[in-house]
Amino acid sequence: MVFVVKIGGGKGINVNNVLEDLASYKDFVLVHGGSDETNQISEKLGKPPKFVTSISGHTSRYTDRETLDIFSMVYAGKINVNIVAKLQSLGVDAVGLTGVDGRLLEGFRKDTIKIIEGSKRKVLRDDFTGKIEKVNIGLLNLLMSNGYVPVVTVPAISYEGEPINADGDRAAAAIAAALKAEDLIILSNVPGLLKDVNDPNSLITEIPKARIGEFMDVAQDRMKKKVMGAQEALEQGIKRVIFSSANIDKPVTSARSGYGTHIQ
Amino acid sequence: MVFVVKIGGGKGINVNNVLEDLASYKDFVLVHGGSDETNQISEKLGKPPKFVTSISGHTSRYTDRETLDIFSMVYAGKINVNIVAKLQSLGVDAVGLTGVDGRLLEGFRKDTIKIIEGSKRKVLRDDFTGKIEKVNIGLLNLLMSNGYVPVVTVPAISYEGEPINADGDRAAAAIAAALKAEDLIILSNVPGLLKDVNDPNSLITEIPKARIGEFMDVAQDRMKKKVMGAQEALEQGIKRVIFSSANIDKPVTSARSGYGTHIQ
Repeated sequence: MVFVVKIGGGKGINVNNVLEDLASYKDFVLVHGGSDETNQISEKLGKPPKFVTSISGHTSRYTDRETLDIFSMVYAGKINVNIVAKLQSLGVDAVGLTGVDGRLLEGFRKDTIKIIEGSKRKVLRDDFTGKIEKVNIGLLNLLMSNGYVPVVTVPAISYEGEPINADGDRAAAAIAAALKAEDLIILSNVPGLLKDVNDPNSLITEIPKARIGEFMDVAQDRMKKKVMGAQEALEQGIKRVIFSSANIDKPVTSARSGYGTHIQ
Repeated sequence: MVFVVKIGGGKGINVNNVLEDLASYKDFVLVHGGSDETNQISEKLGKPPKFVTSISGHTSRYTDRETLDIFSMVYAGKINVNIVAKLQSLGVDAVGLTGVDGRLLEGFRKDTIKIIEGSKRKVLRDDFTGKIEKVNIGLLNLLMSNGYVPVVTVPAISYEGEPINADGDRAAAAIAAALKAEDLIILSNVPGLLKDVNDPNSLITEIPKARIGEFMDVAQDRMKKKVMGAQEALEQGIKRVIFSSANIDKPVTSARSGYGTHIQ
């Protein structure tokens, strides 16, 4: 059975620690983020990151054409290439893909985004953010059935063929659902879902699938999107979603054997 | 029969013009460069490009670890993603690959480079430049036999699993040779091989395969590597190498029907 691992792109995530554990597995798809490094490179390029809050309360990166290129450079150029090389050095025959390749992650570009800035409402029209609606798994299946391990990252692609910024956790969830994966394992720099985001000892170890909706209120900031992704994956037939830490010993093996927050 | 097109990464190359022409073809591999944009982004990141001249007279980009990441970001993240998206919007089912994916372009990292700086000789030990020795075409054949068009770029990968900077023209030549391609078409911002690099009317229209060695003296700077790539490809069985312009009407079709410099 196939499983999907998502490595977050936040600060302080030990990516190599995850890759070294993954080297003992075969049938998996790895999805990764890159937000922290994108922020750093954006600053260096004199284009500091800007986050906007939609009127429905979601926070996302404001992604004009120039930001989209920076985003692609870091996610697909820097992080993806280095992960694939590291996996290759560990004996895993990895192939890097973005959602643009073979239209792997396809969706619509939000042509306008209504945001709140201070007390004012504003409409953004030059944003390249979108929502993934389709996973064209032909390419993934072809690679996996021939012994390759796909390493996937956003950008996704719009129906018009533009690269678009889309949420990486929800991309991982969509891939897991499309592959009918056994597990979706979401690794970040915290031990899992916390009751109190400031207290690492407040870990929620188990959530029955039927009660995940209640936990949307517990989840904060970026964790909210992770829980949304989990909910979407479970609704589409994934058996188990696990939130765990990338920074513990054998993070994938540990997560599969009980560490972190298990939703099933 | 398969053909390979290389689009250069120099200033003033109309990439979209090439892609629009390519949209009417099926069995090809596209290889692209990115040197000019890498120079620009390097400058912006406060890491201006540095070129070194080896004691044997070859000029190459000095590529320390940080430069390698910038190089990968631009080639694989910015240019490759945008080319793949553009081809997808034109109805071509493109998939982007670096030489790291599936160890597509494998070779050795030069652990030391002896260079000349002014009148002094120096040895560089932190350089990630290398030479491609093997093309693992399994991945290319798999994709092409399933209807995908590979869009390939450097970095390549070292035998130790490190991404390495390698010459894009010679990468294209190696791919063409490994695929036993019919044509290798190398498109840049000049009409082909020029007798006098400053005179666009001095185009050499035909070179018999056996006499290519003589033209190594005519070729200057970056064109020297292009001619070396052509020579390598012809030695390995490619029927025809064409140097032509990316900026004329239907550049691929024109090159195949006689424009530019034909070596056969």
